[in-house]
Amino acid sequence: MKDFTKEYFTMTEEDAVDYAKTRMEFFQNDAELTCKEIGDGNLNYVFKVVDTKNNKSVIIKQAGPVARISDEFKLSPDRNRIESEILQLQYKLAPGFVPEVYQYDPIMNCCVMEDMSDHEMMRTALINHKKFPLFADHISTFLVNTLLLTSDVVMDHKEKKALVKSFINPELCEISEDLVYTEPFYDCPRNDVFPATKEFVQEHIWNDSNLVLETAKLKFEFMTNAQSLIHGDLHTGSVFIKEGSTKVFDPEFAFYGPAGYDIGNVVANLLFAYSNAKFTIADEAAKKDYLYYLENTIRDIIDLFIEKFSRTWDEKATEPVAKVDGFKEYYLGTILRDTSAVAGLELTRRIIGLAHVKDITSITDPEARCRAEKMCLTIGKSYILNRDTMKSGSDFVNVIIDAEQQLLEEAE
Amino acid sequence: MKDFTKEYFTMTEEDAVDYAKTRMEFFQNDAELTCKEIGDGNLNYVFKVVDTKNNKSVIIKQAGPVARISDEFKLSPDRNRIESEILQLQYKLAPGFVPEVYQYDPIMNCCVMEDMSDHEMMRTALINHKKFPLFADHISTFLVNTLLLTSDVVMDHKEKKALVKSFINPELCEISEDLVYTEPFYDCPRNDVFPATKEFVQEHIWNDSNLVLETAKLKFEFMTNAQSLIHGDLHTGSVFIKEGSTKVFDPEFAFYGPAGYDIGNVVANLLFAYSNAKFTIADEAAKKDYLYYLENTIRDIIDLFIEKFSRTWDEKATEPVAKVDGFKEYYLGTILRDTSAVAGLELTRRIIGLAHVKDITSITDPEARCRAEKMCLTIGKSYILNRDTMKSGSDFVNVIIDAEQQLLEEAE
Repeated sequence: MKDFTKEYFTMTEEDAVDYAKTRMEFFQNDAELTCKEIGDGNLNYVFKVVDTKNNKSVIIKQAGPVARISDEFKLSPDRNRIESEILQLQYKLAPGFVPEVYQYDPIMNCCVMEDMSDHEMMRTALINHKKFPLFADHISTFLVNTLLLTSDVVMDHKEKKALVKSFINPELCEISEDLVYTEPFYDCPRNDVFPATKEFVQEHIWNDSNLVLETAKLKFEFMTNAQSLIHGDLHTGSVFIKEGSTKVFDPEFAFYGPAGYDIGNVVANLLFAYSNAKFTIADEAAKKDYLYYLENTIRDIIDLFIEKFSRTWDEKATEPVAKVDGFKEYYLGTILRDTSAVAGLELTRRIIGLAHVKDITSITDPEARCRAEKMCLTIGKSYILNRDTMKSGSDFVNVIIDAEQQLLEEAE
Repeated sequence: MKDFTKEYFTMTEEDAVDYAKTRMEFFQNDAELTCKEIGDGNLNYVFKVVDTKNNKSVIIKQAGPVARISDEFKLSPDRNRIESEILQLQYKLAPGFVPEVYQYDPIMNCCVMEDMSDHEMMRTALINHKKFPLFADHISTFLVNTLLLTSDVVMDHKEKKALVKSFINPELCEISEDLVYTEPFYDCPRNDVFPATKEFVQEHIWNDSNLVLETAKLKFEFMTNAQSLIHGDLHTGSVFIKEGSTKVFDPEFAFYGPAGYDIGNVVANLLFAYSNAKFTIADEAAKKDYLYYLENTIRDIIDLFIEKFSRTWDEKATEPVAKVDGFKEYYLGTILRDTSAVAGLELTRRIIGLAHVKDITSITDPEARCRAEKMCLTIGKSYILNRDTMKSGSDFVNVIIDAEQQLLEEAE
């Protein structure tokens, strides 16, 4: 058996069983353990360890020494410390909406957490056109609690600064700075544009100097605005879901950034599901029904966020100027503006940039995929350019309707 | 002799001599040292140690265990580490414009630095109506170099984040958050308003709900915008000056904040000197001449800042989006906006809040002092409310002229 107490190495499935036997208290002594590596992310190894006697199970998530997304991204395994600490903090702020962390091991750079195998990855579920009627309620609570309760509005400012310091996250932020805010907006060699979409990208994105200028401004806001402790990568592949339960995980990109970043990512990824449904569901009634469900989910997330944010502010704000007339409305307005901008950035970068989403790449008909991509880009651009006017859930939905109309007219 | 290597204690003048003999390499072995504590700040002890044989001298600056400004502010002596590191960094970025640091001692919380006794404190010099024709050129170089070269525009983003982390400064920031951004804008018990000015303050500041809302927004920008490594307290009491030489010191409030904060403080403190001159110089021609000099200095600082900033950006920007059309102009515009806002905040808080400036308190005629204070408040309010329109040195000067006109009309 290898020694887990001296020096980091990447574990095999066998090592993970040994680790569970000797370094954890989760299982009983007579447990009969099996293990499978189930990671499909890009940065980590994920071991599911099961006691076959009673089906009790646990996840061991270990940081790889190099990000698997590409050898170009070298990442320090310190991100797993950040992740464990964030999950524990978020568990306190939004209990039930993140997996429970049982222990963190700074030598092996791994954390042991709740097994969520009875949930499924939300992106997969949405591609299979499943509905989750409680998702808007759940995710809006998660967003308000993790974002507002970690801000200067609620936290003691000195304690907040200690958190800012603790969660400075240079390597993962660099990935977002490059892949979200820079490369999609010019003809970067690392981009991966679907050939049929390239002309549209050239004309509507790369040649639009006003759009490019706005994204430059947004990049600097991302790099400098230490507003809330954000998840930093809240797409539907970072959500495990089942009827009645929503769990947000994989917060390794977490740092103090603009609160709207997380909300915008949720909105954009629901729109990838929307694009998938629109261009893959054959039955018109079923398609209409599912698109309607997704539109309402987006509308509800924004409106519930606004409602819960406002109520939580009134109940929990400690900052004296939070009570100044008009300030809450101003502050919320900046979050909605950033939400819109980031939704637009995510919609753009997942079409143009290095990292795609399965909702789109799984559309097998090339023409349908191209139309889906153009829809995402059209909505995304509007979210970026019109971010100052987005005040409600309906505003977000109207951009979708307008984009569909616009593409329909152009196609005619 | 006390032991300087074990545990922190506050030094006497005698201790400082012993310290210089045993812990420093600055003086020769046969030096005949004398020492005088010359601090007039609020947070530190400042010992000037001189070798009477050759007049070589040095400053030992030691952090007090408790801020002397008031027992309410308890400060960790860690601020002296921050100060030493900042001075060393600023010395590299803007050589000659900060004192040289010879050594830093983390046990005694003191740093040994260049003696600037041949300079005088700029506030004192301005109260004595002295002119420094090179100040605008010097300070604009200092500002551009320390602010732009520490930003994401020029620095590698990961290295910048390491600096952000290293210079998180919770206690000193809290002082600014309270004294600059909060207390002056309501009838706070800790304020110290000159009785004759109080009615004006009530009417024009505390009762102006729009102004109060704008200051709330600015407070959150101060707390969240990690743009540049700022000095954080750049008033004319933090500048030592003589003909041909300008030295900025006392950077213990330094942290990553809005670049405009430092520039705004310089502008506001020149305006305190302006108010002093306007209401104390008896000879009309001499007064006119000195006011003209100060107006031109303010105009030149802004215009030289713009010019040098733009040139340095073109030469040194490494961030790819810095080259996007229109981005430099946008970015510079946000700095000028913040400059105006902070100039306004400083003008307001030094009249209303706990910490005053000698330029104003030394005006002995109560009516003149009251008029000087009203002028500062009128200019300050305009800088805050009209910050989006301030694009050049002349814009900053025009606010002064308009305020003088307005007060003249009201007096008639």
